Amino acid sequence: MAIDLRHGDDVADLVARTEALVRDTVVPLEERHGGVIASVGEEGRVELQRAAADAGVLAPHAPREYGGHGLGMCDRAPVFEAAGYSLFGPLALNIAAPDEGNVHLLAEVATPEQKERYLAPLATGRVRSCFAMTEPAPGAGSDPSALTTSATRVPGGWRIDGHKWFITGADGAGFAICMARTSGTPGDRGGATMFLVDAENPGMRVVRHVETLDQSMIGGHCEVRFDDCVVGDDAVLGAVDEGFTYAQVRLGPARTTHCMRWLGIGRRAQDLAVGYVAERKVFGARLAELGMVQQLIADNEIDIEASRALVTRACWELDQGRSAAQLTSIAKTFVAEAVWRIVDRAVQLCGALGVSHDILLSRYLREVRAFRIYDGPSEVHRWAIARRVVKRHSH
Amino acid sequence: MAIDLRHGDDVADLVARTEALVRDTVVPLEERHGGVIASVGEEGRVELQRAAADAGVLAPHAPREYGGHGLGMCDRAPVFEAAGYSLFGPLALNIAAPDEGNVHLLAEVATPEQKERYLAPLATGRVRSCFAMTEPAPGAGSDPSALTTSATRVPGGWRIDGHKWFITGADGAGFAICMARTSGTPGDRGGATMFLVDAENPGMRVVRHVETLDQSMIGGHCEVRFDDCVVGDDAVLGAVDEGFTYAQVRLGPARTTHCMRWLGIGRRAQDLAVGYVAERKVFGARLAELGMVQQLIADNEIDIEASRALVTRACWELDQGRSAAQLTSIAKTFVAEAVWRIVDRAVQLCGALGVSHDILLSRYLREVRAFRIYDGPSEVHRWAIARRVVKRHSH
Amino acid sequence: MAIDLRHGDDVADLVARTEALVRDTVVPLEERHGGVIASVGEEGRVELQRAAADAGVLAPHAPREYGGHGLGMCDRAPVFEAAGYSLFGPLALNIAAPDEGNVHLLAEVATPEQKERYLAPLATGRVRSCFAMTEPAPGAGSDPSALTTSATRVPGGWRIDGHKWFITGADGAGFAICMARTSGTPGDRGGATMFLVDAENPGMRVVRHVETLDQSMIGGHCEVRFDDCVVGDDAVLGAVDEGFTYAQVRLGPARTTHCMRWLGIGRRAQDLAVGYVAERKVFGARLAELGMVQQLIADNEIDIEASRALVTRACWELDQGRSAAQLTSIAKTFVAEAVWRIVDRAVQLCGALGVSHDILLSRYLREVRAFRIYDGPSEVHRWAIARRVVKRHSH
Amino acid sequence: MAIDLRHGDDVADLVARTEALVRDTVVPLEERHGGVIASVGEEGRVELQRAAADAGVLAPHAPREYGGHGLGMCDRAPVFEAAGYSLFGPLALNIAAPDEGNVHLLAEVATPEQKERYLAPLATGRVRSCFAMTEPAPGAGSDPSALTTSATRVPGGWRIDGHKWFITGADGAGFAICMARTSGTPGDRGGATMFLVDAENPGMRVVRHVETLDQSMIGGHCEVRFDDCVVGDDAVLGAVDEGFTYAQVRLGPARTTHCMRWLGIGRRAQDLAVGYVAERKVFGARLAELGMVQQLIADNEIDIEASRALVTRACWELDQGRSAAQLTSIAKTFVAEAVWRIVDRAVQLCGALGVSHDILLSRYLREVRAFRIYDGPSEVHRWAIARRVVKRHSH
Repeated sequence: MAIDLRHGDDVADLVARTEALVRDTVVPLEERHGGVIASVGEEGRVELQRAAADAGVLAPHAPREYGGHGLGMCDRAPVFEAAGYSLFGPLALNIAAPDEGNVHLLAEVATPEQKERYLAPLATGRVRSCFAMTEPAPGAGSDPSALTTSATRVPGGWRIDGHKWFITGADGAGFAICMARTSGTPGDRGGATMFLVDAENPGMRVVRHVETLDQSMIGGHCEVRFDDCVVGDDAVLGAVDEGFTYAQVRLGPARTTHCMRWLGIGRRAQDLAVGYVAERKVFGARLAELGMVQQLIADNEIDIEASRALVTRACWELDQGRSAAQLTSIAKTFVAEAVWRIVDRAVQLCGALGVSHDILLSRYLREVRAFRIYDGPSEVHRWAIARRVVKRHSH
Repeated sequence: MAIDLRHGDDVADLVARTEALVRDTVVPLEERHGGVIASVGEEGRVELQRAAADAGVLAPHAPREYGGHGLGMCDRAPVFEAAGYSLFGPLALNIAAPDEGNVHLLAEVATPEQKERYLAPLATGRVRSCFAMTEPAPGAGSDPSALTTSATRVPGGWRIDGHKWFITGADGAGFAICMARTSGTPGDRGGATMFLVDAENPGMRVVRHVETLDQSMIGGHCEVRFDDCVVGDDAVLGAVDEGFTYAQVRLGPARTTHCMRWLGIGRRAQDLAVGYVAERKVFGARLAELGMVQQLIADNEIDIEASRALVTRACWELDQGRSAAQLTSIAKTFVAEAVWRIVDRAVQLCGALGVSHDILLSRYLREVRAFRIYDGPSEVHRWAIARRVVKRHSH
Repeated sequence: MAIDLRHGDDVADLVARTEALVRDTVVPLEERHGGVIASVGEEGRVELQRAAADAGVLAPHAPREYGGHGLGMCDRAPVFEAAGYSLFGPLALNIAAPDEGNVHLLAEVATPEQKERYLAPLATGRVRSCFAMTEPAPGAGSDPSALTTSATRVPGGWRIDGHKWFITGADGAGFAICMARTSGTPGDRGGATMFLVDAENPGMRVVRHVETLDQSMIGGHCEVRFDDCVVGDDAVLGAVDEGFTYAQVRLGPARTTHCMRWLGIGRRAQDLAVGYVAERKVFGARLAELGMVQQLIADNEIDIEASRALVTRACWELDQGRSAAQLTSIAKTFVAEAVWRIVDRAVQLCGALGVSHDILLSRYLREVRAFRIYDGPSEVHRWAIARRVVKRHSH
Repeated sequence: MAIDLRHGDDVADLVARTEALVRDTVVPLEERHGGVIASVGEEGRVELQRAAADAGVLAPHAPREYGGHGLGMCDRAPVFEAAGYSLFGPLALNIAAPDEGNVHLLAEVATPEQKERYLAPLATGRVRSCFAMTEPAPGAGSDPSALTTSATRVPGGWRIDGHKWFITGADGAGFAICMARTSGTPGDRGGATMFLVDAENPGMRVVRHVETLDQSMIGGHCEVRFDDCVVGDDAVLGAVDEGFTYAQVRLGPARTTHCMRWLGIGRRAQDLAVGYVAERKVFGARLAELGMVQQLIADNEIDIEASRALVTRACWELDQGRSAAQLTSIAKTFVAEAVWRIVDRAVQLCGALGVSHDILLSRYLREVRAFRIYDGPSEVHRWAIARRVVKRHSH
């Protein structure tokens, strides 16, 4: 037994085919649409996923029995990174948030019937989904215990009432996984439960798209209201009052796959910038020969390698069946900030071109910024990381 | 004789009136338009400037004989900062780039006739202008000696041919100050000359708006072509072949007034963020009581004060009639990066709200990014700063 | 009335004479002793101060009636910076901590008799002093309210009992200003009183020198015990129970003069490094021509100018008779970190030579580190800065 | 085949035994001597290594046939990190620089006779060695091609003349591996050859110890002269003129094991600081509960994990028999700066105690600083990293 960092041939093959698809099909589409997903729309999504299916790379994460490749976390890393090389790549492979995380959650927690109804179509992109947890202030955000959306017992089921926002992909989703309080009161933890709510349910309504810096998430970041939203008992995902636990089940891998995808954009930004400075001359020299330029390039490369190495560590822990809360928090915090630095340096390397829309760097800067906030702001992760360190020390 | 940092009562009064105008008139308009200037248009500009004139704060920088307040650099600082508190404030006072710098340049270099024709209407906003220097690669950018646009002698005048881009405000400008090579070849320094070109000149043409991250500059950042653009001898601004020198005359003050304006946005971002964290509660405490939040606030405050102190230093040097090249480079480099950090921290402080369009922070993040590139990227300034330090040491 | 940043001729003259003294007398001594003050000793101190007196630069801070130059804060700044160019310079001018701050405190608070007895000899270096406030955990440190040293009423005076540490200059001091609790209990604020304790008092005892990274403070950082230390009523400095207030009177200026002195070392480090890279060749070029080297030099220069500008701002506020708590906190935090960065970059610029004892840079790195902790760690200042910002916003 | 990050049981066992040795024997000795190796001396070294031999952990890196454990790079990582938890740990296991790297070099390049004579006693600490490559300016430093020490043919051997400095461990070493130019001239690359020089050779002389910030290397950093230093043909290590190539063979692994050892100190610093803040109370709360403190702890933890992850990556490449020049440069640059940050934060977390000699943190700060310079300053590594990135892009 010894340390091994080599991927299997099957994974290497998936990576190569993903790279080809991204290069030949996805990037051209992304460039045509300036990286704005709304401009592509649902038809674009279907087309992209058909191309991925044709290339044999659709749904690398989904269980084999639902049409996926069944990859574990370590094996996903290079495939997701290859897909993430374009803003549209994850959508093409059907591994974009929040669907990717929902597939994982459903595979872990859903009943056989729920799997048939929700997981099966979701796995290969026949339907989209959303995860309705975050609430506007003073509701659930960094502090899940502030959850105000409630689900109360009614004959044969539950009635959900509440107000959510930043619900990614809600507009056009076939169903939502909605987190609602089923015991306790906002501010104490109490119990939350996850519910599967069909888009057709008249009690669920997309109020508006919250316009944001980032624009590469299909279905937008939506404000959603649940008013008198009645669902049956079979809508309960997992056990009643266990929602907070399931959220953790979902979050560890979800934040790690975020890292993989964004690392792809980090590499793309570096490639764009290096391509520019390798050609552009100023003061008689190629930009790439100037020391301050080399420093930016080198710092990008260091950030890329450190990010990838941390992701591998976190993945391996997850693959061992551990919670990996500390390592996934560390990876998320580091990678979110590293990718931000990388894209920012790439913009700087390209000067005025970098802030123009003539290349995609300024788009990436916009997309990447939110990663330091979504899935837990860096400050909340640091708080959790430090608490675990101190706790470990006290033992 | 002793150090004194207090502004005169006249300046304090101008600041107070500017603050009132910005608060009551400019900010509401800015919020309505999401900080996007194109959405306001020329009529909006005229209206804003009429309000500023009514408030007695229009053209604080312009010579008194042309309707301005004739403020020196030290006195401009707090007025420009107060105007910069809104993206639309500088436009309201007619102190936005590039007009503000062009007023300065014309006042220094133009003939009496040119002043009457160009400076007089520009000073109080009857017309807008642009400064056509930057060229797409491999032309003049960070390295002015790469200038490729040429002006050749024709009977009674000159013929200008060349290709410019990132010409701020070109679309809708009444005239351009165009920098063209009149001796030497691209790559050596040679001589450049500045020409006043009327918008009606058929040889000057706005090709397109270069779309960019930032969108608060009226008239956009344009690609402009000069083809067979013939101008008379009276179009020469200053002396032939002295353009590079005049560019420096313009640049020192221009980059310093940039700092003043952007410092205003830095303060605005801080105020927005502090307003948020002072109210928002999480985990049972106000955000403003959490240590990591306090660190972000304190770092913002430190950056604001250091920026302001550096601007004062640079202004005072300029007011003494010195070139102040070192101090204005230092101020520009520091403030551009400080304001970027400030806005970035403000976004982080506001979490998901910060990246949404519900408040203007994400807009500011976009606007501010280019300041680290425009008017000389930080790397070029650092190179110049270091060279001066080493040179000073060798003496 | 207008902003003026020029110093008077008298100050410029003091600066020039200080620079000459430092260059010709102080730096050679510093180099001979590796910057370690203990190796110079009391005789060295006396000799240095005689040289300063001969040069007419002794005691620039002290009131004229006590033999000083009576400079205000703005005027002190360039003189103290010039003295700070060598670790031994402040001692030479008798403006080293803690004596310099104690002169200020005594001038503000002492009775005429106390001034005659303590201030007069202290002002021109006939005696040294210390300020006995800080206590080992869990006593008074960043949190003054934790003060445990107590003073209790006895007939005709007070009995002081307590344990202090990091009492700079205690060994060899002629007297101490001791802070002791006279009401309340540790943990609540209560009241503290300052006492003047003569070195001959058998109740005060230097237990040991706390060995530290820094070694340029004469008399060391000492652990001091007060056991049954009886003093008369005339030993009370100012009013009973007003000690915390006086501590603030002392702290604002004291932390600002720290900045001035350390800025001198920052400049010295920069000069040493620039001198090295201007000569040293590698890969066929002078180090000073390499981009990454230029970046380090430029960042140092930016930090130096920003530090100086912030110090001027804080000084001016203090000279207006304001508490300037916010601006002195900002200056202290920024300058302490800036000087640390400067020296660290200077070490890096000099490579292996930089970490050797062959030049003084590694000594400076050691000296400067503590400045981020002494007089309030950066974290405590940031906490205070943020609280004031939030408070200001709430009004 | 799949990724695996688990160490074998044999390695885990070595780690556990190393941890026990360090905790029970090495750390107490280190604390007694303040981390200064000269205060321990040769007898101390012998004793430490006997303890390591008794614990079965001596020479984990050395080939089995020479009494070592024969660990590859991946397996060394956790053992070296465990040893590095004390400044004296690497010496105890005989894996301190430069001996550890010299063992590797001799195992790769030496003849059987040379192995018997030099490698055999070196592997288990019967003798120490040094690596004489670096020269004072303008000789070989970051730029090896500046090599000025020459070796010229004499009958039956070579005569070496030159001047070296920063030769770690030279004082007391049984032999040196000396790098000397055997063709070409300083400034062009030409050819260098490595020579084995016995300490008894009268032509080799330790001139002085270069005093430095760091003091944990046995035998110091020495200035060494070679004057008329004649050696036989059997003193040539490997082939003539191939010295630069061998230097690379040595450097990749050597800089990576540096990372492992210093990572141990990083963890130690974190443990010391966490231990302090977990107990110390201020303003009524434990320091560990304050946000800014938590941020420092979290950033340390992130740096530790990222460092470890990068080391693993580099090790695995080296274990595959690749040069791993890019990954070892990246790891060295990142870890050197990360460990510096970690120790600096740890000092800050402990306040005045942190800069005192009462705990070892200030010693660690001194030791760690040089790591950003030794084995290639960060700037040289960044330059090399960027050049490889640009080269890769051009293909």
